[in-house]
Amino acid sequence: MAEKITPRATDYSQWYIDIVINAKLADYSPVKGCMVIRPRGYALWENIQQVLDGMFKATGHSNAYFPLLIPESFLKKEAEHVVGFSPELAVVTIAGGEKLEEPLVIRPTSETIIWSMYKKWIQSYRDLPLLINQWANVLRWEKRTRLFLRTTEFLWQEGHTAHATSQEAQEETLKMLQVYKTFAEDYMALPVIDGEKTQSEKFAGAVKTYSIEAMMQDRKALQAGTSHNLGQNFAKAFDVTFQTKEGGLDHVWASSWGVSTRLIGALIMTHSDDKGLVIPPKLAPIEAVIVPIFRKETVAEVSDYAKSLASDLRAAGIKVETDLDETASSGWKFAEWEMVGVPVRIEAGPKDMQNNQAVLVRRDTGEKFYVAKVDVPAKVKELLALIQSNLYDKALQNRTEHTYLPDSWTDFTKLMEGDGGFAEAAWCGSAKCEAQVKEATKATIRNLPFALMDKPVDKPCLKCGQKGQHWAVWAKSY
Amino acid sequence: MAEKITPRATDYSQWYIDIVINAKLADYSPVKGCMVIRPRGYALWENIQQVLDGMFKATGHSNAYFPLLIPESFLKKEAEHVVGFSPELAVVTIAGGEKLEEPLVIRPTSETIIWSMYKKWIQSYRDLPLLINQWANVLRWEKRTRLFLRTTEFLWQEGHTAHATSQEAQEETLKMLQVYKTFAEDYMALPVIDGEKTQSEKFAGAVKTYSIEAMMQDRKALQAGTSHNLGQNFAKAFDVTFQTKEGGLDHVWASSWGVSTRLIGALIMTHSDDKGLVIPPKLAPIEAVIVPIFRKETVAEVSDYAKSLASDLRAAGIKVETDLDETASSGWKFAEWEMVGVPVRIEAGPKDMQNNQAVLVRRDTGEKFYVAKVDVPAKVKELLALIQSNLYDKALQNRTEHTYLPDSWTDFTKLMEGDGGFAEAAWCGSAKCEAQVKEATKATIRNLPFALMDKPVDKPCLKCGQKGQHWAVWAKSY
Repeated sequence: MAEKITPRATDYSQWYIDIVINAKLADYSPVKGCMVIRPRGYALWENIQQVLDGMFKATGHSNAYFPLLIPESFLKKEAEHVVGFSPELAVVTIAGGEKLEEPLVIRPTSETIIWSMYKKWIQSYRDLPLLINQWANVLRWEKRTRLFLRTTEFLWQEGHTAHATSQEAQEETLKMLQVYKTFAEDYMALPVIDGEKTQSEKFAGAVKTYSIEAMMQDRKALQAGTSHNLGQNFAKAFDVTFQTKEGGLDHVWASSWGVSTRLIGALIMTHSDDKGLVIPPKLAPIEAVIVPIFRKETVAEVSDYAKSLASDLRAAGIKVETDLDETASSGWKFAEWEMVGVPVRIEAGPKDMQNNQAVLVRRDTGEKFYVAKVDVPAKVKELLALIQSNLYDKALQNRTEHTYLPDSWTDFTKLMEGDGGFAEAAWCGSAKCEAQVKEATKATIRNLPFALMDKPVDKPCLKCGQKGQHWAVWAKSY
Repeated sequence: MAEKITPRATDYSQWYIDIVINAKLADYSPVKGCMVIRPRGYALWENIQQVLDGMFKATGHSNAYFPLLIPESFLKKEAEHVVGFSPELAVVTIAGGEKLEEPLVIRPTSETIIWSMYKKWIQSYRDLPLLINQWANVLRWEKRTRLFLRTTEFLWQEGHTAHATSQEAQEETLKMLQVYKTFAEDYMALPVIDGEKTQSEKFAGAVKTYSIEAMMQDRKALQAGTSHNLGQNFAKAFDVTFQTKEGGLDHVWASSWGVSTRLIGALIMTHSDDKGLVIPPKLAPIEAVIVPIFRKETVAEVSDYAKSLASDLRAAGIKVETDLDETASSGWKFAEWEMVGVPVRIEAGPKDMQNNQAVLVRRDTGEKFYVAKVDVPAKVKELLALIQSNLYDKALQNRTEHTYLPDSWTDFTKLMEGDGGFAEAAWCGSAKCEAQVKEATKATIRNLPFALMDKPVDKPCLKCGQKGQHWAVWAKSY
């Protein structure tokens, strides 16, 4: 099996695709740029959804559902929004056998349709805050696509909130960014840098955009989630006003925020190896797999022993699968279960049965443990926790090792032409410098990290040499 | 509040809409025929999803996700399918600023795109059965729409399974119909008649369609779920063959089955009354609401008492909300919570506090119970169970009382011109009679009930008077 996967060192892009296809996470579809999410991939998305949905509800949000189709004119109501999304729209012009009077676009995001409803629902400060989230499919006609990371259609959640004050909208925007950061770090084992996007990288229609950014194994950045302070832009575009507590009338303040199936791409790219997928245990659909080692004379007894192990594990709340297939060799099965990323493999052969034990193997390190049967559930739990933290540590180490403070433009270009990585460097604040850096090196400002906001900017701008205004993280990205 | 709802006796259709709008379950959208599902409505859908999803997984199914857009040519591959769905399609002709070479349709159902993938995934009997479900939005351009019951876009699940034999496909088809029946009766408190659809009412592309049918309070039928045996129709259309165990080559056998947000419409129409929504407790997002009765001097103490009641209930696993709003009257609040359908109301005023008790009120019957504080959680649980079974019993009684065995065509037409109901009558099996009955009375055969399949057909056909071949249930429907 392992031969099916191109090693990272040979071709990182092909390695990624090989894992997605061979671990049966997703497949190409007959529709350009659209993928099929297969059961093993969708199970990851279900686990991501379940955790995030709980976090959204715990912070006071409710789910709702808005129409897929948006009248074309709605997008035009917010000036920046239409410019940003027009090139990517899929347009329905015929429906029910007739040409539509006004074309309908498939939502690329739902601000416009949602704010057209908020106009109906919001009259007074008593109706605020309005904290709604939607789990939905969206569509952006992309020229270059890559499974999970950038697809024409993708699944996501989009939060859309309405507030009585600018400050509340800003607090919400930052609160949800922290929810994303917590989720990424605690569940995906993905260390992220939270910070503010520059004006040229912000969401079309936002006042400010914030992001969490992660480093992949090839040292490129991946934007894993964004949260936008929309100010009064959409409220003004859709004329959503409310009676204030003081009896005045004001436009409503807004935020929106989202993460998508792209997170699955981030998960794969961060943790997997040349043997296949590696899944952080907290999101694993199967936490442990039992592979009985069959010898002809003891197939029945060893099967029973494996089933008894499985039942112990299930009783301890561990999601376990037992591979009782007698037609495949144990070695083939080991490779197969490594490919699909199950965190702990449990081997049990005739000798283990005699000794009343099992052999536990960690997916991340390959370490083996001989464990008495009675101790197996506890040891599996211990290993799951260790794997979870080890994956985080390894990812953080990768980022730390490949984060640089280039002293000069020459240093920076060498870095970007070479192995790449994150560059922490000062920026003068001008969009022109940003554009020139991108033109010259393909690197962009990922964000202005919160962690560096209080650090004095004692260096000149990476590009123009003028006074630095902000610390920025620059990198090539997905 | 109650005045906002038109009584059923005055205008049943308006009553339904008044409940949907006033209980904030859904709202009209700016896109013709599409609705917005508001948080209170979506919470019902989430509960429905959670239970059904568990039942699908317990029967061996996995979730996956297939593209929203389908090449127009795919629909044409199955002859009946294209005829059935063509009039209802929304067509994307422009994407990314360019006219598409081949138009893409928004899925009205996903058989065609899914079977184009099954061709890739299925080679051998070892790949079977393939048991996949998808939770998704679909779109059918409907001329006449009604919130939840028939909307242009709706949310649903669609199961698509592939099998090695005709018998397995048939067993799956019937198994999933029974899953739907169990869900409808045990969770939605909705008694349903399971049976086979006639050829003229079957799914476009199926060999056989089965349905569950429920009676609404206005004695019309509502089809609450369908399960189809697709035979080899889609396998042939997409050339999906597999190597059999015996070494031969055969086309794969298939089923598909679905329920949708229409179920929410069925739930509303079956149980609600002139005061508003009534929700079967097993699906209620809020099971009990505490309304403290405020007197100026004791607001703080009564609030604390209410909170203490809430904490007892939460500890017992009951989903409870506490209405601490001091600006609204208790009477207004009672009406409001009745409107949104919370099964049990708990009133607690200064006197109740003194007596260390609370007043419990059933949403379905209005019955009041004075209960010692310590007994409140247990009593709430008891009432929830009683309400659940009472709602089922009432719905069954309504159906039983309005199910008739008309002796003649005259009896039947009188029934359909009058109060309506279900008519159990013999049918000769000809599509012509079916069409004539529909033309004359608007009633259709809902299905040929399983429960009547062994009963000797000792009556002539309702319409033509020739020998009866099947017992059928006829009714007007949604």
